[in-house]
Amino acid sequence: MSTKDRSQEQKSVSRGFDFELLHRDSESEARLGKITTPHGEVETPVFMPVGTQGTVKGLTPETVHDLGARIILGNTYHLHLRPGHELIRAHGGLHTFMNWHHPILTDSGGFQIYSLGALRKITEDGISFQSHIDGSRHFISPEICVEIQEALGSDIMMCLDECISYPADFNYAEKSLDMTLRWAKRCRAARHNESQALFGISQGGKYTTLRKRGIEELVDIGFDGYALGGLSVGEPKEVMREITADCTPLLPEEKPRYLMGVGLPEDIVESVYHGIDMFDCVMPTRNARNGMLFTSSGKVVIRNARYREDNSPVDSECDCYTCRNYSRAYLRHLFVAGEILAVVLNTIHNIRYFMNLMATIREAIKNDYYTTFRQNFFSGLSGTETENK
Amino acid sequence: MSTKDRSQEQKSVSRGFDFELLHRDSESEARLGKITTPHGEVETPVFMPVGTQGTVKGLTPETVHDLGARIILGNTYHLHLRPGHELIRAHGGLHTFMNWHHPILTDSGGFQIYSLGALRKITEDGISFQSHIDGSRHFISPEICVEIQEALGSDIMMCLDECISYPADFNYAEKSLDMTLRWAKRCRAARHNESQALFGISQGGKYTTLRKRGIEELVDIGFDGYALGGLSVGEPKEVMREITADCTPLLPEEKPRYLMGVGLPEDIVESVYHGIDMFDCVMPTRNARNGMLFTSSGKVVIRNARYREDNSPVDSECDCYTCRNYSRAYLRHLFVAGEILAVVLNTIHNIRYFMNLMATIREAIKNDYYTTFRQNFFSGLSGTETENK
Repeated sequence: MSTKDRSQEQKSVSRGFDFELLHRDSESEARLGKITTPHGEVETPVFMPVGTQGTVKGLTPETVHDLGARIILGNTYHLHLRPGHELIRAHGGLHTFMNWHHPILTDSGGFQIYSLGALRKITEDGISFQSHIDGSRHFISPEICVEIQEALGSDIMMCLDECISYPADFNYAEKSLDMTLRWAKRCRAARHNESQALFGISQGGKYTTLRKRGIEELVDIGFDGYALGGLSVGEPKEVMREITADCTPLLPEEKPRYLMGVGLPEDIVESVYHGIDMFDCVMPTRNARNGMLFTSSGKVVIRNARYREDNSPVDSECDCYTCRNYSRAYLRHLFVAGEILAVVLNTIHNIRYFMNLMATIREAIKNDYYTTFRQNFFSGLSGTETENK
Repeated sequence: MSTKDRSQEQKSVSRGFDFELLHRDSESEARLGKITTPHGEVETPVFMPVGTQGTVKGLTPETVHDLGARIILGNTYHLHLRPGHELIRAHGGLHTFMNWHHPILTDSGGFQIYSLGALRKITEDGISFQSHIDGSRHFISPEICVEIQEALGSDIMMCLDECISYPADFNYAEKSLDMTLRWAKRCRAARHNESQALFGISQGGKYTTLRKRGIEELVDIGFDGYALGGLSVGEPKEVMREITADCTPLLPEEKPRYLMGVGLPEDIVESVYHGIDMFDCVMPTRNARNGMLFTSSGKVVIRNARYREDNSPVDSECDCYTCRNYSRAYLRHLFVAGEILAVVLNTIHNIRYFMNLMATIREAIKNDYYTTFRQNFFSGLSGTETENK
């Protein structure tokens, strides 16, 4: 393939999918962009709420969209096991099935299968595993992984990868990387539906040399976007930040860059600084269910007795439905009483917090003050961390 | 008190509360009416969804209102124990606390305390009981019962009554009735806030003579409305229907009539026929959480395997959000996966079913075909009962 051919290939891996780089922050690697998919456009940097089993837990899709979410993540592993991807295909795909008519990214299931530990076995062919639900045996190859995601009909599919534990020794990380790269090629070849974008996933553990070679080979295969995988798996925070800082500049500028499974607001702010465009994490939804709320002045653990009679909103700077209409005392009451509405209202708040954060990030990049924003964010944060002790 | 005085008293027991009889069905006792409260108007016959702990389980107040609910019921017993009525008073009352700015009726707690069985002791003074939550000891007298409901700030308060078991012997029922009547007087006398209406509760078990005398004495005390209590406590369905048919005509025509804790759609249709205006029941919300959905063609138990691949809505005749946007297969998936959205979507459907039923009932009364509607309802119902076997 000539350079010219490859350049064209890079531009049009998928029909209906596009990424446009709109602006670059003048003092950092932070970028403003726009992803176009068959189900709509997404401004980046973007955070994707997680809809594990065909639902962002507790919320209707209309509410999720009203909160500002423009793309959500669906879990291939979970949906394959239950209700089954063929059932979803027969319903016209995941968008119709779950009534979310905006972009969806599906992961490959690699991370969930990795989490199964002893219940999975990995070979060159693919991954054999037992269901966490009923112990039934399953096999996912790169080809099957793509087939499932095509049945789901997501706008962005992810390649099957081996997610390795931290720490892994160099030899294991290298062998695993090579297999993940062969799997990436097989995923690319297995694709039938060109209206669904396909992203490659960088592996290689904590070894920058492996990461670097892996990214080069992935780019050589050619994908619609590139993800950093194998992070947020127990490594120290500095390792995650170092790999993000080292690897992001290696990813093609004209493609979206996705840091999988991240994360905390501070990790998002830091990673955007290095040029990451996309994030996903269960944190806003899971923490909401556990009664932990993100606010402009630090974390609020709503069941705390100090909020028993507190008639102020969770976050006086927040514009969400929950903060506009309910007191901390009411939210504490709902949580302590085990009421379902506690989950609903907490999730609304946390997702809105993340959506507002991303909007602020995009605004800062657009107006070339991302570095200042980042400094203020971290000085504000360290203040509240102290306060919360 | 002269007859004229009493008539005026009957008309204006509370400020801001009113009941207007708009129309009487030409062939039955069914009535169309309008209740006015400080928080808005309510067309009758009306069904009140239950918001036990300051929330109609799973739904935001806006959703409850959008579904057609115009008045909800709050539980004095539950709110007294958790979060405490003084906390709610400090928040400006239950309307503000829970963000429902429409009418609220609070029960007296009598039924919940009755349900505690051995954990309660009843004397002339009031009821001593232990909390079902933490075993703490509490005491509620008629005066305290009114005080709690005034703290909650409901639009309609209920008198404290003794709810007796079925069957109770005549002597016990009579002694209990007399005490309930003395309590009713004490509640009436204890009231401070005239903007909150107060309803009396008819007791007397299955004994029509007791019921009759009790109602006469209640009317003599003078309330804003009258309820039939002590039903739906395990008696055969015929007993409940017989008492409703016998007692409803004894209640003052110019006051709303409330059949407490009822109930099933067929019981509502039957009781409206005899002249009942108000209902409440946990059935639509509780059954929704258990995956049982009311439909125009009978009950649907959504976890049933027959719905696994069923891409039709729960009820093709229903106009609710759930039926307009989701398939039975999706709802089954959510329920089987234990997703919170299952509760939300099922509850939306069931409440809408009840609201649509009440709207149809009011329309039938307005146009003088309630008898025909009732006949069609029961012939349709018997058909589907057979189908569901």
